[in-house]
Amino acid sequence: MRLTIGVDIGGTKVAAGVVAPDGRILGDVVRHPTPTGDGEALADVIGRVVAELCGRRAGDERTEGEENGEITAVGVGIAGFVDEDRARIVLAANMGLSDDPITERIRRRVDLPVVVENDANAAAWAEARFGAGRGSDHVVCVTLGTGVGGGIVMGGRLQRGRYGVAAEVGHYRMVRHGRRCGCGNDGCWEQYASGRALVAEARDLAVTDPVRAAHLLKLAEGDISRIRGPEITQAALEGDEGALECFRAVGEWVGLGLADLAAILDPECFVLGGGVSDAGAILLEPARSSFARHVTGRATRRLADIRVAELGSTAGIVGAADLAR
Amino acid sequence: MRLTIGVDIGGTKVAAGVVAPDGRILGDVVRHPTPTGDGEALADVIGRVVAELCGRRAGDERTEGEENGEITAVGVGIAGFVDEDRARIVLAANMGLSDDPITERIRRRVDLPVVVENDANAAAWAEARFGAGRGSDHVVCVTLGTGVGGGIVMGGRLQRGRYGVAAEVGHYRMVRHGRRCGCGNDGCWEQYASGRALVAEARDLAVTDPVRAAHLLKLAEGDISRIRGPEITQAALEGDEGALECFRAVGEWVGLGLADLAAILDPECFVLGGGVSDAGAILLEPARSSFARHVTGRATRRLADIRVAELGSTAGIVGAADLAR
Amino acid sequence: MRLTIGVDIGGTKVAAGVVAPDGRILGDVVRHPTPTGDGEALADVIGRVVAELCGRRAGDERTEGEENGEITAVGVGIAGFVDEDRARIVLAANMGLSDDPITERIRRRVDLPVVVENDANAAAWAEARFGAGRGSDHVVCVTLGTGVGGGIVMGGRLQRGRYGVAAEVGHYRMVRHGRRCGCGNDGCWEQYASGRALVAEARDLAVTDPVRAAHLLKLAEGDISRIRGPEITQAALEGDEGALECFRAVGEWVGLGLADLAAILDPECFVLGGGVSDAGAILLEPARSSFARHVTGRATRRLADIRVAELGSTAGIVGAADLAR
Amino acid sequence: MRLTIGVDIGGTKVAAGVVAPDGRILGDVVRHPTPTGDGEALADVIGRVVAELCGRRAGDERTEGEENGEITAVGVGIAGFVDEDRARIVLAANMGLSDDPITERIRRRVDLPVVVENDANAAAWAEARFGAGRGSDHVVCVTLGTGVGGGIVMGGRLQRGRYGVAAEVGHYRMVRHGRRCGCGNDGCWEQYASGRALVAEARDLAVTDPVRAAHLLKLAEGDISRIRGPEITQAALEGDEGALECFRAVGEWVGLGLADLAAILDPECFVLGGGVSDAGAILLEPARSSFARHVTGRATRRLADIRVAELGSTAGIVGAADLAR
Repeated sequence: MRLTIGVDIGGTKVAAGVVAPDGRILGDVVRHPTPTGDGEALADVIGRVVAELCGRRAGDERTEGEENGEITAVGVGIAGFVDEDRARIVLAANMGLSDDPITERIRRRVDLPVVVENDANAAAWAEARFGAGRGSDHVVCVTLGTGVGGGIVMGGRLQRGRYGVAAEVGHYRMVRHGRRCGCGNDGCWEQYASGRALVAEARDLAVTDPVRAAHLLKLAEGDISRIRGPEITQAALEGDEGALECFRAVGEWVGLGLADLAAILDPECFVLGGGVSDAGAILLEPARSSFARHVTGRATRRLADIRVAELGSTAGIVGAADLAR
Repeated sequence: MRLTIGVDIGGTKVAAGVVAPDGRILGDVVRHPTPTGDGEALADVIGRVVAELCGRRAGDERTEGEENGEITAVGVGIAGFVDEDRARIVLAANMGLSDDPITERIRRRVDLPVVVENDANAAAWAEARFGAGRGSDHVVCVTLGTGVGGGIVMGGRLQRGRYGVAAEVGHYRMVRHGRRCGCGNDGCWEQYASGRALVAEARDLAVTDPVRAAHLLKLAEGDISRIRGPEITQAALEGDEGALECFRAVGEWVGLGLADLAAILDPECFVLGGGVSDAGAILLEPARSSFARHVTGRATRRLADIRVAELGSTAGIVGAADLAR
Repeated sequence: MRLTIGVDIGGTKVAAGVVAPDGRILGDVVRHPTPTGDGEALADVIGRVVAELCGRRAGDERTEGEENGEITAVGVGIAGFVDEDRARIVLAANMGLSDDPITERIRRRVDLPVVVENDANAAAWAEARFGAGRGSDHVVCVTLGTGVGGGIVMGGRLQRGRYGVAAEVGHYRMVRHGRRCGCGNDGCWEQYASGRALVAEARDLAVTDPVRAAHLLKLAEGDISRIRGPEITQAALEGDEGALECFRAVGEWVGLGLADLAAILDPECFVLGGGVSDAGAILLEPARSSFARHVTGRATRRLADIRVAELGSTAGIVGAADLAR
Repeated sequence: MRLTIGVDIGGTKVAAGVVAPDGRILGDVVRHPTPTGDGEALADVIGRVVAELCGRRAGDERTEGEENGEITAVGVGIAGFVDEDRARIVLAANMGLSDDPITERIRRRVDLPVVVENDANAAAWAEARFGAGRGSDHVVCVTLGTGVGGGIVMGGRLQRGRYGVAAEVGHYRMVRHGRRCGCGNDGCWEQYASGRALVAEARDLAVTDPVRAAHLLKLAEGDISRIRGPEITQAALEGDEGALECFRAVGEWVGLGLADLAAILDPECFVLGGGVSDAGAILLEPARSSFARHVTGRATRRLADIRVAELGSTAGIVGAADLAR
């Protein structure tokens, strides 16, 4: 069995694991803090986790017969823009890197084929192959975290675009002259459908209708600035009408955005990941309803499924590993 | 040399020709009226043009040595939705067909492999392979006609979506609560970036600022309802400020839409076709400027080219023929 | 008792009556067709109805003791723009008049003081004085007919603006780049909150969701183009979910617009008139709910009442008569 | 000559002066810090400045013959909501007061008639009577400061609305689902047309186009967060294209908002005040152009003038004093 290593580099930690051809992670996930502002230090960490995982497999081989296999490649998913040749980090704002020859750096430390990819693309690939989208060749993944990211699988292939920056779905414009976005535009989808948007809804509610927001305020100990995503999800799961209203608002925007993506990409299914999707049906229901009411051609077309991601925080590891295969 | 036949079925006429592997049409294009509301009659016409073109080639072969070749397949582009198996017309409103087994009907009449495709997809494929997008594997074509259509080539492959209805770019929503569209939604891109939108701009100008619209009104013999696309293009090419203003408004919307498509698809180039693109630089300049000002990540990304289509009205024939290859 | 005559000139008919100081119409309303394109003919009709009403009063005086009184002035409300001096019709598109010295024309025919006013202003004045807004000095009337008109009473006085064209509330912009309006702008409130908007909602529903629109389609005998306001109101009053959805959509927009007007004018109450308001609570409920959720400062301000007009189609007569007092 | 005292209570300082019937301030303006969170302390300061100004007049009288006169009343303008009876502060967030019986407090300290009014209303009244709007009975003042405030004079009277909160023009909604506002709504005009909006434009420019923003960045010593209103105004006055672009964007929004206000209020002139208006023609030109292109009925109506305020920071004193007359 040919195994590969997946490394997921986030803004705060590097997580890595050995992945089987069927997408399972074999053994434990290894974690280290992410060094910032230093490509060499980052490559050192990657080199170290790869060595660690290779060494562990060498030890494991004697005991776990059926999982035997050789590690044949390393896939790295990174929270940043990766260029079209998968050679350089164009920009990884969270870890303070730009125009960094990361692939070459890793190759000097790792004696295996290396593939570098954007982390959202890697996670999307994992969900499309092994998670909520498995069995379909046309899957669009949307990660509803602090911001909104995504990955597109069409015709069974990950679509990276010409310059490696496709699927920046969080920054297509939902509203002309809408809410300002850190990207310098306004009206980006992620200003409406992200965790940040959910929190803004809840805080606005607390300002304009404290009675309706009473439960949310209680969970936040009376401090509006402490209303955060987990409090809202908890309140919604407990049936609080104010929190549910916030999810309905965000879910409506999620569905509107998916309707636009369907007009362009016509996928078989959408997979929603990220922290906001932890609310499950509370998010899915308004998203599905909004999607069904807004997608063009709804009277005649087959509607794409909308599902919650299944692989959780390990999707990046699994996807990176599989892309390296 | 393996030749194929391309058939382009529009709302009013069927046009067909023999296409070489390099995208050239060999000999004349054959044209017939499109029968409406009758799949059998439509298949009859297709059978007839194929027989006609095959017979002509048989005659030609003796004389045109270097263009010799065998006709090996037939590609049909049709103005309507074609299902995922390219077997049935889901809906072709202009010719009054729905859920029609067109491919089977043609196969009973034509003794060659047959491929059926949406006409905008076929034209996009032609432009991507042989026209303004040649040399690139990542091309998005946008047809700015009465409405707005499109075709997407990513990774060198035509992306039809899961159910065959991808690239309905005219119906992604540009403006929440925007202008009503015949599709039942509001704010669709085609309400802002199409020939119909150009005409609406010009007529609004004639209502609100007759002085500025004087030249347009003259070309329309004083009748606002007779201001149409060709008049506006002519006036703009003659330097009329009112008409140029209309093109700037539409070009701005074109660029805004391309910016959104770039966020999702990251193509190497956009190819603009359809009647509105006949204005050339008059449309391209505001579109490029708007695109460059609005595309996300513009400070760091490489901007896609925006070009005018090169193949004109034969793109559908060429693309259908090549898809059949 | 000093009586005055009110004349309401609409696009198709001239209606007039004698009005008491308490706003009651004494005796029957007189009606004539509206002549078009001819200021002299229009003034003739006005002269005739005034003579008719004066004559009738002269006859009545002997019999109806308690309503005795002298007719002391004539007020004329007209469906068009009236200039700041109430001397000329700037534009009355429906009756084909522009820059017409209507007041002078009437004075040559009527031997009483004459006041000319825009009909929506006259109706608003009537509702503020004698109808749903009586008792308040701060009333904004909004007429939801085919289009949307209005009248503003602030500080107990009708606010005509500097040039006589205040309260064109139907043409303040609700949506940037929104639905095109006949005025040459786009996004005007009347494209969202009028009877025309209600009909557009219903027809869109019939296109995109025929099942939900089944009852509406039945009332329109299966012909989408025959779905009109009365059918939608009837269906909604019968509890049809599709029709109710249309009213909710329009009511939401009504409330949004009232919220903006409240931010600017801070009235004590809004009075909604016109055909759409015939639906009563079916319109009022979503309008009030939307208003309460969107008006700025809603956590602390006192919310304006939203009421349905009480005087119906005679408001124009009553208001014009009272303005002449 | 009857004189009155005007007191302008801002978030940081109390400014007061003696005002003649023609709007001139006689003698110097007196200034004190604004106490916060304490209505009694605030009334103490007001009592003190009134005593100080009365005492000074008593001394002056012997020397300045022609300016002789008696102080007959005190007007107080305050940065907060004042109730309909001008008796209580409903909310003055900057000075930490809510539901405060300010008028009664002042009356216990001042032996003259007292009138309390919102400061933006007071300033608007001053501009309408003695400043850029003098000579007109229909003036709308818009203050483009950090936020956007306003005051409405119609029919020669200050229009306070039923509950004293009219003219909250900064919080009428410009854009559905637009930029979030501190008031809990989104899309408020002040998110587009204020000093804050100007700064946001400039900072966005610095992020997305550092070359174009080079001069702005230089004035801010390279620190995006130090780009503020005065830097942008300075750069614009020096002809910097980047800064001018920011003013064009804001001016466009100013004009759009004025167009909506004109549809509702039909004033003779708009007076623009606040820090953003310091740029003069640089702001006025795009605002006028945008207004002229967007106001409804522009083909036939007389367009309102758009002027810059003339009274500067003393408008509040002058207006409060005159309202007390």
